[in-house]
Amino acid sequence: MQVEVLPNAGSPLLPYLEDKLVIVIDVLRATSTMVTALANGCQSIIPVLSPEDAIERRLTLPGSLLGGERDALPIDGFDLGNSPFDYVPEKVGGKRVIITTTNGTRAIRDASAAPKIWMASFLNMHSIVLAVLRQFENNDKLQGVVVFCAGTEERFDLPDTLCAGMLIDGLGSTVTLNDLGEAARMLYRSSEHNLVEKISDSVHGKRLISLGFERDVVYCSTPNVLPIIPVFDEGEIVWLTEE
Amino acid sequence: MQVEVLPNAGSPLLPYLEDKLVIVIDVLRATSTMVTALANGCQSIIPVLSPEDAIERRLTLPGSLLGGERDALPIDGFDLGNSPFDYVPEKVGGKRVIITTTNGTRAIRDASAAPKIWMASFLNMHSIVLAVLRQFENNDKLQGVVVFCAGTEERFDLPDTLCAGMLIDGLGSTVTLNDLGEAARMLYRSSEHNLVEKISDSVHGKRLISLGFERDVVYCSTPNVLPIIPVFDEGEIVWLTEE
Repeated sequence: MQVEVLPNAGSPLLPYLEDKLVIVIDVLRATSTMVTALANGCQSIIPVLSPEDAIERRLTLPGSLLGGERDALPIDGFDLGNSPFDYVPEKVGGKRVIITTTNGTRAIRDASAAPKIWMASFLNMHSIVLAVLRQFENNDKLQGVVVFCAGTEERFDLPDTLCAGMLIDGLGSTVTLNDLGEAARMLYRSSEHNLVEKISDSVHGKRLISLGFERDVVYCSTPNVLPIIPVFDEGEIVWLTEE
Repeated sequence: MQVEVLPNAGSPLLPYLEDKLVIVIDVLRATSTMVTALANGCQSIIPVLSPEDAIERRLTLPGSLLGGERDALPIDGFDLGNSPFDYVPEKVGGKRVIITTTNGTRAIRDASAAPKIWMASFLNMHSIVLAVLRQFENNDKLQGVVVFCAGTEERFDLPDTLCAGMLIDGLGSTVTLNDLGEAARMLYRSSEHNLVEKISDSVHGKRLISLGFERDVVYCSTPNVLPIIPVFDEGEIVWLTEE
């Protein structure tokens, strides 16, 4: 299986995606929060690029909530921030959430040519690995996996890259990798026993901790606790029902 | 000391460079070849962006040689390719070489706002580390180091990143790093004893080996054999005479 890792949203050169399974990773915090929201009964998540888009979209979807962040902080007038701890069952159960985040939403948009787009985080990695392996057993139209690390402000992000490395490590030894995929696997293998420390020491981790979100950083660094695969389908992110 | 690593030439977001020492790394093969050429008596290297620019430039510099590559292969009608083994004393001794390479030349151009631009490779890393440390002892106008990995076709390149990691590792424990700098150090530390193997297995390494350049890949993966610091100054790359 061919696995190509891209470093950040806004990468100028996108590979051919029409026959690829794309996996979007934004550990701190967009995809971790999406996984958590769906696990807590959220009906679906609608990613949009700007707060203005979110407000406009809600006009057509009464009863839905607005969520997201700018510069890691909640947006004025929105119902929810980008902390997974905002997305508790009492708030999001049975609801649609229209969400805008800086990097994660852009990564989903950049992936839009792909036939399948899933969201991964440490939280749901075990389920992602098993589902990827099943896809490639059953679907000979897919020609590989492209991992979109959302990145931070169009830069390489260590938490996202470690998470991509955990995915690749889990897929076994028969994968063919680009250089960033090989680097991701090496980075993951050298830090799998101190993920929280490495992620807390990253530029984005330190910024979140300085803003009071240490609990988010620790939670988002926890592997294999939620058996959920968020899939992007016709503009909405919902729980994957396997074919 | 603050050290920021950028992943490839053509990075859309350049940091403020006016108070930085920039170190350009293109292990396979531009900076390795430049170090070798200067060690072999080449008078200076003039990096230009295109083969056409090189031919035009030679009109003003009679007696100079043309060197470089496109898609890793020599350019028709040029005197030298991009293999360090082309740059032997009998050919380059006492001569200027006008050189165009895909990624390395672009990285040098992108760095042009910096007051100091040096070229690093595994070959000259020991000298680079010592010279960087001396610069920061003696020069309080410099506010940090920015490492430009040239990359391959605007992508993350493992050989360049490992070389950046060796630089950072050599600078000691007091450096402040961006995420890619931290990743580079981790990658170098986990492969410092099998550099040739890791570089040979990279996408660019495999491509060069398939084209018959295995000897180049092994040579360019050899640390600390040439005590040369190429410095870009007024359009030419020359041997650094320390202030």
